[in-house]
Parts: sequence; C-alpha cells; structure tokens
Amino acid sequence: MTTASDTPALNIGLLGGGTVGSQVARILTEDAEALTERIGAKLQLTGIYVRNPHATRDYQLDAHYYTDNVDEVLDGADIIIELMGGVEPAREIILRAIDQGANVVTGNKALLATHGNELYEAAAKAGVQLSFEASVGGAIPILRPLRDSLSGDKVNRIMGIVNGTTNYILDQMDTTGASFHDALAEAQRLGYAEADPAADVEGEDAAAKAAILAHLAFHTPFTLDQVYTEGISKISDLDHKAAANAGYIIKLLAIAEQLDDPAGVVLRVHPTLLPRDHPLASVRGAYNAVFIEAENADELMFYGPGAGGAATASAVMGDVISIAKRKLRGGPGRTHTARRDLACLDIGETTTRYMMVVRAADAPGVLAKVAGTFAEHGVSIKSMNQTVDETSSEDHKTALLAFITHRAKESELAKTLEATKTLDVVDEVLSVMRVEGK
Amino acid sequence: MTTASDTPALNIGLLGGGTVGSQVARILTEDAEALTERIGAKLQLTGIYVRNPHATRDYQLDAHYYTDNVDEVLDGADIIIELMGGVEPAREIILRAIDQGANVVTGNKALLATHGNELYEAAAKAGVQLSFEASVGGAIPILRPLRDSLSGDKVNRIMGIVNGTTNYILDQMDTTGASFHDALAEAQRLGYAEADPAADVEGEDAAAKAAILAHLAFHTPFTLDQVYTEGISKISDLDHKAAANAGYIIKLLAIAEQLDDPAGVVLRVHPTLLPRDHPLASVRGAYNAVFIEAENADELMFYGPGAGGAATASAVMGDVISIAKRKLRGGPGRTHTARRDLACLDIGETTTRYMMVVRAADAPGVLAKVAGTFAEHGVSIKSMNQTVDETSSEDHKTALLAFITHRAKESELAKTLEATKTLDVVDEVLSVMRVEGK
Repeated sequence: MTTASDTPALNIGLLGGGTVGSQVARILTEDAEALTERIGAKLQLTGIYVRNPHATRDYQLDAHYYTDNVDEVLDGADIIIELMGGVEPAREIILRAIDQGANVVTGNKALLATHGNELYEAAAKAGVQLSFEASVGGAIPILRPLRDSLSGDKVNRIMGIVNGTTNYILDQMDTTGASFHDALAEAQRLGYAEADPAADVEGEDAAAKAAILAHLAFHTPFTLDQVYTEGISKISDLDHKAAANAGYIIKLLAIAEQLDDPAGVVLRVHPTLLPRDHPLASVRGAYNAVFIEAENADELMFYGPGAGGAATASAVMGDVISIAKRKLRGGPGRTHTARRDLACLDIGETTTRYMMVVRAADAPGVLAKVAGTFAEHGVSIKSMNQTVDETSSEDHKTALLAFITHRAKESELAKTLEATKTLDVVDEVLSVMRVEGK
Repeated sequence: MTTASDTPALNIGLLGGGTVGSQVARILTEDAEALTERIGAKLQLTGIYVRNPHATRDYQLDAHYYTDNVDEVLDGADIIIELMGGVEPAREIILRAIDQGANVVTGNKALLATHGNELYEAAAKAGVQLSFEASVGGAIPILRPLRDSLSGDKVNRIMGIVNGTTNYILDQMDTTGASFHDALAEAQRLGYAEADPAADVEGEDAAAKAAILAHLAFHTPFTLDQVYTEGISKISDLDHKAAANAGYIIKLLAIAEQLDDPAGVVLRVHPTLLPRDHPLASVRGAYNAVFIEAENADELMFYGPGAGGAATASAVMGDVISIAKRKLRGGPGRTHTARRDLACLDIGETTTRYMMVVRAADAPGVLAKVAGTFAEHGVSIKSMNQTVDETSSEDHKTALLAFITHRAKESELAKTLEATKTLDVVDEVLSVMRVEGK
C-alpha cells in the first residue's frame, strides 16, 4: 500500500464518455488503489471531455469531471485517452495533445486507418508514445504481440474476424438458416448492429482494422482506401448451402498478406470460405479472432470479445499502464519502429482458391464445357458438386454446379469468370467466393 | 539498409545447440540483415556453448562458433540466450551472466518453476532483464500479453493446454477410441513423446508452466511444488465414453485461479472435462492454448504450436529483440514488477463441478441412495446418465451411473466420494474428474 504524500501522480485526460469511455472512467476510479500499487504511481483522472456534460451515462462520475471545454482536459495531461471516435475533431485534438507533450492512447480505428501516419510521425517527432491496442479486436491483445513478440519472426499473412456484427449475422445464417435480412434484424434487436449497419455490413470497419494490422505486421503504414473491400449483404442462403455442402463455413475476413513476386502487400476484406475445422471457423457470435501465419511461429490465433465497453476498456488500460510505467522509469520513449516501404498491390496479384456457383443446363456435355473454360485460363478445378436447382423447369432443365478451384491468381480467375458468363450452357454465375485455409 | 561501419552491435551468447538452440542460431545468422534493419543494431552471435562442439546438429554453423568453454560465451555478452534446459548448470551459468551485467533470455521452465524467484531478484538487483516467453506455450505470445496488455485488468483464472504430448494422446483417445497405451506409443513413434514420458504424462511439465503463468497473472512468485498435479495415465476408455455421453471432452489443463475467500491462489493440473463447444475443446493434436478469464476483458484465448524448434525460437527472438531495442534506447531497464504476496491455497479450497462414475447394483432404490449421499454432503447433482455395464452378470446386475454435479467445494466432494465408496449398493467408484467451462 502507498500513501498519497509520497506517491507520484500522472494526470490522465479522457476524451469521450460513451460506452468505452465510461468503463475506462470506472476502472480509473474504482480500481485506483490496485492500479497505484501495481504501477507505483497514481493515475489521476483530471477530466472527461464530452459534448454534453449533463447527459446521463452508463457509469456516471461526479459532475465536476465532465466538461465541454477540451482545453481543460488537455491542460497538464501526461496521458490523453481518446475514445470519441470519428476523424474530426479527434485528429485535431490528438495533434494538440501530442504537441503539448502528452502521450496518447486511442481506440479510434477510423482515424488511424486514414490519418495514422500523420499521428505516428507527430508522436515520434515530439518523443511521446501513441498506443492503440483497443482499435483492433476489442479486448484481444493483438497489436502488442504483433509488434513485440513476433518482432524476430516474419509474418506472412494475417486473417482476422475483426467485426463482431458481421460474424454474428453470418453465424446466424449458418446455424439457423436465417436470411441475411432476418439475421441483420436480430443483430439490431440485440444491439450487435447499428440502426445504420452499412459501415459494418459493407466491410468498412473491417477494412480499417486490416490497414492497422498490416501496419504493425509489415512495418509500413497503410490506409483504408488501399484495402479491397466486399461486404456480406449479397450473401444468400444458396451461398451458405453450397459452402456447407463442400465442408466450408463463410466468414468475413480481413486479410493482409505479403507477396514476394511482385513484392508487396495485398489488403482485402471479403466473405471467405474456411474449412470447418480451421481454428477461425469455430469463432461464433460476436467474438473476434486474429489468425497469424508466420515463418517460424507457424500458426497463431488470438481470440476474445471484439467489442463491449468493459472489454475494450481493458485494452485501453493496458496501454495506459505501459505508458505510465515507462514514464516513471524516466528513460526515453519508444523509438519509432523501423519503417519499411512495401508497395500495396492490387488484389489481382493475389493467389488463392475460389468457389464458383453456376446455374447451367442439366444436359450432357455441360460440365465438360464449363470445366474447359477453367482449364483454358489456367485455373485448375479441385472439386465439383452438382445439386438440384429449385428453379429448374420441364422446358429448361437446369442444375447448380459448385466448383472449388486449386490455387490460382485472382486476375486469372477474373478472366475465367468472364468467359464462363458468356457460355451458352450457363444461365447465370450465382456467386464467386475466395477460399482460405489449408 | 545499413552499413557495418556505423551500425552498433550487440553481442549474443547462446547456451545450448539442441532443437531450439539450432533454430535460434539459424535465425540470427540467416535473417541477420532483416534483423539489423528492424532493430538498428547488429545482433552478433559470438559463440554457442555445447557439451560436444563436434556433434552434428539440425542446423550447423561454422565450427568456430561451438565451444565447451562457457566463459568464452559469457565473456563480453550483452544478451545471453539459455536453451540448455534442466536446473543445473543452467541456474549457475545464468546467475554468472546476470552478475556480469548481461541480459538473459531463457526458455527453461523447469528452472523458472523451481528457482525463478532467485533469478528474478538477481536480475532486478543487477538492473538487467530476464525474459522467458518461450518457457510457456512455445511460439504463443502469452507471457507478454499477461504482463503488459492485461496489466490494467484483473485476471481471475487461467486455464491452459500447455503440454502438447498429453493433448495429442487425449485427442487420439477421443477421436479414434485408442487406449492410453496405444495413443502413447503412437505419440512416441511420431516424436511427440519422449522414450521416458513421465514428465509429460504425469503432469509435471504442465505444472511448471502453471507456476510460471500464475506468477505473471497474479504478480506473486510460485513454485512447482505448490501445484496440485494429476497426470493422464489412469484415464480409461470408459472415462472418455462417459465424458462424451455427457457432451464433454477430456483435456489436461493447467489451472491457476484467484479465490477471494479464503484469499489466495489455487494451482492445479489435472484431467478436466470441458463442454465440447468451449474454445479449448477444439485445440487438437499437439497444439497448445491458454484461456484467460479476466474481470473486464472477459474471455481471451491464445492458440498456437506449443513446441518445435523454429516456433519456440520465434518466441526467443521476440524477447531478444525487445531487450536489444531497450538497450539501444539507453534508458534504465524495466523496473521489477510490483510484487504482491498471495497465499497458495490447498486444492480443497477450490470450488468447481465434477463428474463421478460409479458401478452400482442395477436395482430399484439405488439411484436414490447414491443421490442421497451427495445431498447429505451439500453437493447438488446437475445430471445423471445411466449406461449398460458390460461386466454386469445375471447373478449380480450392475449399471454405470455418471453423475455431473453443480459447483461444490473440493473438500465437500472428497467427503461425498468417501461416503459413496462405503455404500453397500456401490461396487466401485470408477472415476472422478473435475468439470470446467460454462
């Protein structure tokens, strides 16, 4: 135990009093004694910047903590915790905090994925730390292991389930056979999805996290607009059935992978088929997980709650305490991570496997014709599964053909797709999805 | 890219040239250029201490690296990597290295779980770092997240599959119905188990890791002899069947949990029933995983290869690079983690659930009699499943009764067990296993 008189104190300013901010405020006050004992210094919450100081909150501190004057919170702060979300005014306030010599902890993925480099450089120049564990995977410690524990290894690929809303929806569709719209409505009812679900459902949130993960893994800053992004709103029952028939499950993955030829990184977010025994396949409901393939460590997975106030606050506090401990030791701040300059490649350079589902005439020679088109474009077929087409009629007998390919270049698959669409025996290409995992 | 002339160098001495040592030597030499670029300093491998410098190794460097004179390796080293294993002479050499001002990276769980405190204190006193990520969970970054990322949270419990040999054996028994002895023989054939498998099979290896995990999670040093330890050699087909019938899988878990009343920590390693949809249940083969229950972060899991030269070397290199970076920054070393002094409690204080399988007379009133014994000792039954007993005869009709309890104190279960054994309707108590997970 320590006494107030001889214990150093660090001033903490909090920006934002929402779900996560409230929980950080709770931990800083309720667990103050244990934290002081652990760190050897008092973490003194000096103020909370909010839009409306008089609003009611999940966890409410004494009224004098809340202010709508950001200067009161920045003034004299050793550590600023930014949990406002959104690009502005968060960006501008963080830059001011850095300029004043404060260390910054943020969970703001949208900001980091668009203006990250500006912030990293400002922090490096000012000799302060900028930490952001909470920006990806909620409570899951993923950024620190990537940066520190794997620093002596070579990360080849990261695949993450980093959006709980879409994982919940896909899980419901898989387990209950619900349609996308019903599963979305259920997610909204349970509070897993926003009233306007576009950022989650169309993959933008996952894309921001892909850019942040890739920065840590490949030591090169990337931005949101470099991520190829496909959401889950077009996934049908039929896709789920075709996937299940072939032994796969559909997950929305954020993938960052390093290629050797051409050299660079491909960033992509899209619905992906995974074998049902893949570790990521068992990540259910609103949980998140990040799967890492590294040269020496082989395959690692980090799993946990991807959202939630208390869970995300746990990650924020881990960053705060690391900064506090370093500040107390008195040494210089962390040197800026050595920068590499890997190119961000077009998705056309990716090599992976695919499932293509085609509605085609149910007649002799059709399979050979479609398979021939794959062969022409150098795409080799691993398996094909033919199922009954419920739209088939006596006049025009059709069947559903689900092809799974061996590994092929994305650009070659695109050509195969175009050629398949023009075949007279093919009514329609119903879906094309990428397949990952061994 | 850097040039040799203006790049600082750190001298690395390696103790041990076995499976992991060879892979560390490989990474230090083959990846030298990338490491220098990443760290801003050259990691200069100065020598490798081995018993026989002329032996052939997995990965062989030039002969001049190998020496059986440990002084040649310690002399002038900035970082010593100890991968010899065993308590002595590793302990004595590490203490000498610390005394000379070298930082130490070790993967030696047996040493840490018996003499850890002596080493931590020596390192703190000398102002050097002692890192040991590789000692638990092979390549899985688990110690650093526990220490840093969860430093602002309260860990309630850790459950780990931390021994690949026993996980492989249990997995084989579960999936193929093999007996313990056949599964062990298969594990030995594949190189997953040693010729003398006792340390793995009897739980000692897992117990050492439990002590290390508990130290990081609860900020109190613990030793191997404080861990209640039961191995897997007595697990039968019948146990697996009874577990499967009730929807569970058997895993050897290392568990460290903090209790409030009485206050303290219980450390235990034993075969454990987990629900089949628990994240740890899907950890197959020789993989490892550590599951953490924390106050705010809720449930986290870290998964990956628990052994293997290259994988473990990845964890070693993460530690080496962290130390190298800190040394280059020039600040003081990490301050010693704040110490708490939690008591290590007897397993009798644990509260958990249990499965008890009993061979009893197949006659009216028997179930009521056995259930009554549970009730008398305050142990509440959650479910009971009766199955055919293949040893039953016309003269003496018996059945197998598998009881699953609600949560009860270990000491109460022990009394229930004693009383059950003395019941005239009970032939035999075939097994008692603890049940974890929701």
